[in-house]
Amino acid sequence: MPVIQITMNKGRSVDQKRELVEVLTRETARILQAKEANMRILIYEISDENWANGGKLGVDM
Amino acid sequence: MPVIQITMNKGRSVDQKRELVEVLTRETARILQAKEANMRILIYEISDENWANGGKLGVDM
Amino acid sequence: MPVIQITMNKGRSVDQKRELVEVLTRETARILQAKEANMRILIYEISDENWANGGKLGVDM
Amino acid sequence: MPVIQITMNKGRSVDQKRELVEVLTRETARILQAKEANMRILIYEISDENWANGGKLGVDM
Amino acid sequence: MPVIQITMNKGRSVDQKRELVEVLTRETARILQAKEANMRILIYEISDENWANGGKLGVDM
Amino acid sequence: MPVIQITMNKGRSVDQKRELVEVLTRETARILQAKEANMRILIYEISDENWANGGKLGVDM
Repeated sequence: MPVIQITMNKGRSVDQKRELVEVLTRETARILQAKEANMRILIYEISDENWANGGKLGVDM
Repeated sequence: MPVIQITMNKGRSVDQKRELVEVLTRETARILQAKEANMRILIYEISDENWANGGKLGVDM
Repeated sequence: MPVIQITMNKGRSVDQKRELVEVLTRETARILQAKEANMRILIYEISDENWANGGKLGVDM
Repeated sequence: MPVIQITMNKGRSVDQKRELVEVLTRETARILQAKEANMRILIYEISDENWANGGKLGVDM
Repeated sequence: MPVIQITMNKGRSVDQKRELVEVLTRETARILQAKEANMRILIYEISDENWANGGKLGVDM
Repeated sequence: MPVIQITMNKGRSVDQKRELVEVLTRETARILQAKEANMRILIYEISDENWANGGKLGVDM
């Protein structure tokens, strides 16, 4: 704990993901006074036909 | 807000997804008196070996 | 299947929730050609200090 | 109800998934005194660049 | 990993939850050949007006 | 998009949550080159009898 789940569109590099989990783990642990070692981050990548803002699919934007 | 997450088996067309997010956004906003523009929908597609009803995998039904 | 999860702020009436699950189940089953009886909807109510748009908490809007 | 969601790394066989959903459904229904037929299990498989323990990506372990 | 999320209706005792997480962790680790120490289980309890089967709220069943 | 969901134990102050959503939104937008305005964060607070590490409930640690 805490467990962070990130849902985002596909296409980010491994380097971006590496920086993302490092920074989010460090900052969350600092702010919540949690242990970094206990934190888990899960990333769910979805294509642009699988999300919508305001009723409009990502592929239609 | 609200955020709607839909987990369903693979194989629907983009047209079905387009209608789904339009209708669910409009109806949810109407019933909850929320702003359509603020709504988010996320669709997670999983294969038939990754869900089960009553302890039985989708591939075994 | 499908399973729909809705995260929204607290404060809606049972009547609103009843209409919401009826309409979303019926419309989703119709569009995806799924059986209504197999559908599940889960609602997660969170307070205004537990969600943020654009980095700003709900309580600060 | 209940609905169980499992996020795990890719690579398990259908046989492992079949045993997993059978056992988890049976044990959960027994302990919670729920009906097996009403239970749902959803499995989300993610690659090793999409999860992190303690701020470190799975691909870097 | 894996991370298991359980959504269920309110009202189970701490003893039931204790047995549930012990058994699910042990069985999942055994079947998936994962380390028990790395597993996480998260339980989300919701009231009967916040879930629906087949378009019908739990409070109406 | 992206949508970030955080599950954590209860007891953090509004100030901690405010800092958390500000920092996570800003850092995620920077790293993923996403628009801050489109980001959503949802926080799920659960009590210590509703999560487990390695098969052991939070209340038993």
